[in-house]
Order: sequence, then C-alpha cells, then structure tokens
Amino acid sequence: MKNIFIAISIFIALISCSKTKPNKQSQQVVNKQDSITIKQLFNTSLTNGESYEWLRDLTSNIGGRLSGSPEAQQAVEWGEKLMKNLNFDNVWLQPVMVPHWVRGEKEEAYFTSNNVKFNVPICALGGSIATPKEGVLGEVIEVNSLEEAEKLGEKLKGKIVFFNRPFDATLIETFRAYGGCVDQRVNGAKVSGKYGVLGVIVRSMTSSIDDIPHTGSMGYGDLPDTEKVPTAAISTKAADLLSKKLKENPTLRFYFKQGCKTLPDAPSYNVIGEIVGSDYPNKYITIGGHLDSWDLGEGAHDDGAGIVQSIEVLRLLKLNNIQPKHTIRVVLFMNEENGLRGGKKYAEEAKKNNENHIAALESDSGGFTPRGFSFDASEKNYNLFMSWKSLLAPYGLHDIKKGHGGADISPLKSETISLFGYKPDSQRYFDYHHTAIDTFDKVNKRELELGAASMASLIYLLDTYLK
Amino acid sequence: MKNIFIAISIFIALISCSKTKPNKQSQQVVNKQDSITIKQLFNTSLTNGESYEWLRDLTSNIGGRLSGSPEAQQAVEWGEKLMKNLNFDNVWLQPVMVPHWVRGEKEEAYFTSNNVKFNVPICALGGSIATPKEGVLGEVIEVNSLEEAEKLGEKLKGKIVFFNRPFDATLIETFRAYGGCVDQRVNGAKVSGKYGVLGVIVRSMTSSIDDIPHTGSMGYGDLPDTEKVPTAAISTKAADLLSKKLKENPTLRFYFKQGCKTLPDAPSYNVIGEIVGSDYPNKYITIGGHLDSWDLGEGAHDDGAGIVQSIEVLRLLKLNNIQPKHTIRVVLFMNEENGLRGGKKYAEEAKKNNENHIAALESDSGGFTPRGFSFDASEKNYNLFMSWKSLLAPYGLHDIKKGHGGADISPLKSETISLFGYKPDSQRYFDYHHTAIDTFDKVNKRELELGAASMASLIYLLDTYLK
Repeated sequence: MKNIFIAISIFIALISCSKTKPNKQSQQVVNKQDSITIKQLFNTSLTNGESYEWLRDLTSNIGGRLSGSPEAQQAVEWGEKLMKNLNFDNVWLQPVMVPHWVRGEKEEAYFTSNNVKFNVPICALGGSIATPKEGVLGEVIEVNSLEEAEKLGEKLKGKIVFFNRPFDATLIETFRAYGGCVDQRVNGAKVSGKYGVLGVIVRSMTSSIDDIPHTGSMGYGDLPDTEKVPTAAISTKAADLLSKKLKENPTLRFYFKQGCKTLPDAPSYNVIGEIVGSDYPNKYITIGGHLDSWDLGEGAHDDGAGIVQSIEVLRLLKLNNIQPKHTIRVVLFMNEENGLRGGKKYAEEAKKNNENHIAALESDSGGFTPRGFSFDASEKNYNLFMSWKSLLAPYGLHDIKKGHGGADISPLKSETISLFGYKPDSQRYFDYHHTAIDTFDKVNKRELELGAASMASLIYLLDTYLK
Repeated sequence: MKNIFIAISIFIALISCSKTKPNKQSQQVVNKQDSITIKQLFNTSLTNGESYEWLRDLTSNIGGRLSGSPEAQQAVEWGEKLMKNLNFDNVWLQPVMVPHWVRGEKEEAYFTSNNVKFNVPICALGGSIATPKEGVLGEVIEVNSLEEAEKLGEKLKGKIVFFNRPFDATLIETFRAYGGCVDQRVNGAKVSGKYGVLGVIVRSMTSSIDDIPHTGSMGYGDLPDTEKVPTAAISTKAADLLSKKLKENPTLRFYFKQGCKTLPDAPSYNVIGEIVGSDYPNKYITIGGHLDSWDLGEGAHDDGAGIVQSIEVLRLLKLNNIQPKHTIRVVLFMNEENGLRGGKKYAEEAKKNNENHIAALESDSGGFTPRGFSFDASEKNYNLFMSWKSLLAPYGLHDIKKGHGGADISPLKSETISLFGYKPDSQRYFDYHHTAIDTFDKVNKRELELGAASMASLIYLLDTYLK
C-alpha cells in the first residue's frame, strides 16, 4: 500500500512536469517520416527549384503591376499560363473589380530656406489626388502623430502638414516598427483634410536613412471632395533635413507637384490553381501571395516572392509524389496593395460556394531567409502546431507562434480555419518596401528557395495532421 | 514517516525532471537585469552604431588587404588609429611575420572544343606558383575527389587535373557544404603534383552557379619544387560547361596563365585594443576577426564585418557605462586567410606572458542577420551557456550549440578557455566568399549592427557569469 501511494505520488509529480514536455516517444514515431519528407522538400527546392527563374521572369519582363494596369493584366496571364504548364488539376481566373489609381508624371518637390533650394525625393501615395497643375507651395507644420495634428486643428489651415514620426529602429521585428508609424501614411490626410490644409507629406516608412521615397496606400475616409488634399511620401534623408531646417527657419516654404488620379474601377482577376485532394476533395488548404504590386519598382520582395513561392509549393509536392489528402489551392490574389479586393472576393466566393476552408498560408513578408510562421487559430490546435517546432527548427524556422496570418487570407477567418503567415527574416524588408529598388537583384536565390520549401513543409504537415 | 517518504519520492521525481529545465525562479531574477542590459546594447547598436560607417571606410578607402600588401599595412594603421580615437585603455601593435603572396597580372583562361573557344573566369589560388610566361595548355582529366586523383596516379601525367565535386546545396548550414568540398582546393595540387601534371584547376566553392571565380588558400605540403604546379579556381558556370564539353570531347584542350608568386615573409601586426577589467584585470576575454582579406574584392563580409563588429563591442560597452570585471580585448588578427600567423602569434605571446584567457569570441562568418553562437568549451559550462538561450532568442539568436569557435582564436584552446563563434545566417555568404564581389554594398546596415549587438551581449554575459 505504501508503495502504491509512493508510486501514485511520483506519477502525479511526473505528470505535473510533463506538461511542458511533449510525449517524446509518440512524437518521435511521427517525426521520423515527417522529417524525411520535409528534408526531401528542401532538397528539391534547393537543387531543382524553379521559383527564382519564375521571379526573374515576372519582375524583369513584366515589372511593377499596380491593380488595373496593363502590367497587372499581363501578370494575370503569366500566372494562369505558368500554372497550366505545371499541370495543376484545375487552373482558373476569378473575376474581381479593382481600384484603378495611376501615378501620372513623375512627382517633383523641393523646399527653399534662406534662398537655398533643397530637392526632395518624393512620391505620391496610392489613392491620393493630384496637386493643381502648378503644384502646391506653402509653409510646413511638422507633427509626430495624428493626435498632434488633431490638436493643432485650425492652426494647420493653409499649411502643408508634415508627419515625421520615425520608424522605430530598435524593434527587432521590423513589421512592428512599420505598424507603429504607418497610421501617419494611411490616415494623415483624413485627419488633416478638414482643417483646410494645402497638402500632406509623410516620412517614408523605413529605418534606412536614404534618398528613396516609399509609396503605399492612403485614404480620405468620409471626407467630402473639398477636403481631400494631395498626399505624398518623402525620403527619410529629406525628412531629417526638412525637420532640421524647419527648426532654423519655421517659415520655409515647401513645394510639391503630382499628377496622380483615380480612374473608374477596372476588371481584373485572382488567379487560382489547385491539386484536388484524395481523401477530402471538398476541404481546402489555400496558399497565396499577391500578384499586384506598387508601380515604382518590380514588386520583387513585395510580393513577387510570395507568388512564386506559393506556386512552387504545389510543384514541390507533385515532384515528390506527395498526393495531398485535402485540396491544396494556390491563389494569386489581386489588389492587396490598395484595396484587398482579391482577398475579399476569394472569401466571398468561398462562402457562397459553401467551401470548407480548413487552413490558409500567406507569404507576403519578402523572400528572405526563413525564421518561422505565425498563426491565428483556435486553441485546440495550438499544441499540434507547437509540436512541429522540432521538425522545423533545423531549417531556421524557430519562430512558431501566435500572430497575424496575412491580409489576403484574413477575410477567410472563421472559428474553424487556421491562418498562417510565413515569416522570413525581416531586417532588409523595409529597405525596399514600396520603392523603386524592390527589384529582382535584391532577392537571393537560396533564401527564396528555402522559403518555398518552408511553406511546402508546413502545407505537408497541415494536410497530414489537420482534421 | 509515510508522508516524509512520499515527500522524498516526489522530490526525487521532481529533481529527475528538473534536469532539463533550469530553476525558473532564480533564473528570472538574473534574467531581468540581463535582459534590460542586452536590450540597451541592441538599442545603442541600432540607433547609434558606428560599425557600418567604419566598414564603409575600411572597404572603400583601403579595399582588399592581403597579408604583406601595402593595403594590409594601411589597415593596421586604420585599426590602431580608430581604437585610439575611441579611447580604449590600451591600444598597441603586436608584430608578426606573414607570408607575402602576390597575384601579379590578371589571369587568363579558355578552352577550345571543336574549334570553338570558351573563355573561362579564373583566379589563381593563394600560395600557387605561376604558370610559365606563355601559360599552360593541355588536356583535362576531371575528378571528383582527392582519392579519385590518387587512384588515377600516373594516368594524370601531362594533364590538367580538374577537381569538380560540387558544393552540396542541400545543406542548410552552408559552412558544412564548404567543409565538404574545400579539400579539393587546399590539397588538390599536393595530391596531383607528384604525378607530373601540368596544372590543377578547381571548381569554385559555392552553390551559386555564376561567372565569379573564388580564390582561397592552397598548399603543396612537402612536395619538392619540381612537383609544384600552378593551381587556380574557375567559376561554377565554367566548371559545368567544361564538364559537359569534356563528355562530348575528352581531348579538348584547356589553357590558363597566371603570374602569381610568393615573396619573402613580410613584417606585419595584430592590432590590439583593450578595456582593463575592474575586478580581474589579469583575466582576459578576447573578441576578434581578421584584418587581412583576399585581394580580389574589398573583404567586406570576410572579414571587414568581424573587424568592425569586434571594435563596436567595446564601444557599446563603454557607451552604456558597462565596466567589465575582466579585461576585454579586441584583436584584429593579421593573416587568417593564408597562414593564420596572427592567431598563432597572439596565442604564443599570451602563453609567454602567462595571460589567463577565460574566453574568446570570433566573428568570421559574415555580417549577416544573427542566428546564434557555437561554442567549444568544457562540459562544466555547458548548462551556463544554454541557460542564456531565452535571453538571446528575442534577437534571433536561437542556435546556441557546441561547435567550432573560429580559426584565429583556435590556437588559444586549452582546458579552461571557452571559445565562441558568432554565427549569423549563412545563406548568402558563399555567394561572395573570396571573390571580387565581396564588397561593401553586400552588407546590410541593420544586419551588421544586430551582429555587433549580439556579440556585445555575449561578452556582457561571459564577463558577468564566467568564473
């Protein structure tokens, strides 16, 4: 009896520590075949990958592909043709109407202080209106937040409002730093417009101090047309200089001119390809990135990388004779950058057709070296996903944690779906993001291929274990 | 009594599981101040770092700095001046004689097959002799290993031996792939020379298929002068083409010409700077990289990055008012690339002076985004080092594991010293290693700065906890 008591006590004690450790024996059985398959996926991507050459083609032969542009249409045709050539089971176009904003002639900007002229690298923000033909010239009020602009209120009248709160370089995850300042770009004009300002300029969203302006989307909310003002981003170096000169000379005058405009919505498409599942053809796992990009560069990291990686996932599965149990779909979403119309349309159609989407994975953080995955899923799958850590760690995928899935797949969110975001290293991303230098040469072949293999591995695990 | 028995049983059971888990409570007390200090070191590096501008200066204004060259001497003076300007407690030069190999005129190579001429990007290997003035022309025997060459023996006579075993692209840690093929470069001539071959060419050590030849060191071992043959590396694209053409035409002829030579050993220096420890001034922790580089590029990743990061570590400690208990020394080692004379000299002098070196950290794997540290240390410190994992993980430093410290610090090895290697992401390293494109523009500012802060954090922990 005493011994039984002791045994129970030991058992209870052991149970209480085992909570933090997975059941080693059962896990190792699972791991062995899984780790072999994952290794094969990586080997194939690294020695026989096609994603890099696809990206070269997309970025070099089509280039920037803003929604509604001829290049976006070329990209749709490119994606459809590529997936048909790869013999996916089904490939089709899903129509969607998209916003159609055009930049017009190259923007100009400068400021003068004590009769010295300083040229300013500038670009209009997506969605902004043009300046009058002759441009806008006025004094500048520098603010560091939307709240500060609101507080100044009527004092902004007749001025150009300059949002200059910097990207926080101390945050290791650069997307957090982006999240911490992008409200100025998105809502700066919305907040300032009602006070009769001449225009809004915003510091580019990057920790890099350079001469490259970063575009991106902005909105006017419910402002009447009379309160909409031209809005642009200036380079960080110009922002620092302007800020410094404003301290010396608060009445210096800033000039900018841009000819952008919004045309009527245009027809476009999500491009979809799939391999039909053997066991659960009516249960879907979606992989995707966005096919549109900003117009300034080639949309290489954002998000050409995610596009070619998503297609490569299906190719890697096929090449390794992995027949998925669920239907695996690649979606090249249209219009992530300035509308998310593709993401919304895909979810809308999925709902209309009563499709059972069990998981989705998005790659829209660049084609850099793998770091991990974030997931937005119900608690019941938490332990399952975390049990994959040891399988993924040998490939540099250490950061498996709760977080955002991605913009394009977010409209699919439900209580039953698991949303994943592929998280590569983020240190270089905001050097290039939304700029003229987001070009093919910034993407490293191995890093891109490791990303594709990381995604394929996750899809394999989801297909194998997700109920 | 029964209760005591149960209590003891539970205690034993708990102890047996606690082996894999550190004592949480005591560790959390330690971690709090440590994590604050580490965060400060990262913040300072990312917002107020100087390593990137130092690297720009070293690579752009001095450039490649092979041992014995005027540029190597300029780099010595550069390092001494920089550390003196930073007001380190002591800064001095440690004399060391180094090999002095010079490349001479730009190499030439081509092969002809069926009257078609194919130009071949080539570079002499460091330590090789020249070809005769008119070059070397001969048939080629392709081999994949030293063993294969040995086996062919006399059949190699009068031929050019072509070592073509590729870099294994499937290995995620690219240094392992390098280790798996570099014997061909180092010992190819030593093994083939005795069979009367005309010369040796070797496939460049990279998984990238491109037109860039990678130099590096080679040796003749004990071969008499009559058996030493000119040895060079050719680009991977050329190696693939040559291999293909050899299958079509085994008697095609390869030509190469190089004018390199070895001059008498030259005087040079390790450059040393230190902050004297407050509690244990006679116990040393050394940080370093190598100041010399190959001549073809600017030695930016290899190893300008390690040089500026090492100096930055001391600056970050000073700037954060961290007075180390032990003496922390920065050593800019001379001649890692083709002799390791600086590393050997430093260890020799340390021994002669009875210096007690408790730890050393080397950065010689490029200025890329942080991944971790490898360590070569006695078992008794294993748990201590592993207990730092949670402190370092937020900065992407997940790979804390046993392994090689580094070439320059390896002569310090003893039973009591802990040797560490800084391990950044290795995916891009061998695209640039020992080539003309290892230039400043390949280094990302944030990645470099994160590396410096990672190293400073480890030095802080070693100084705080190492006995």
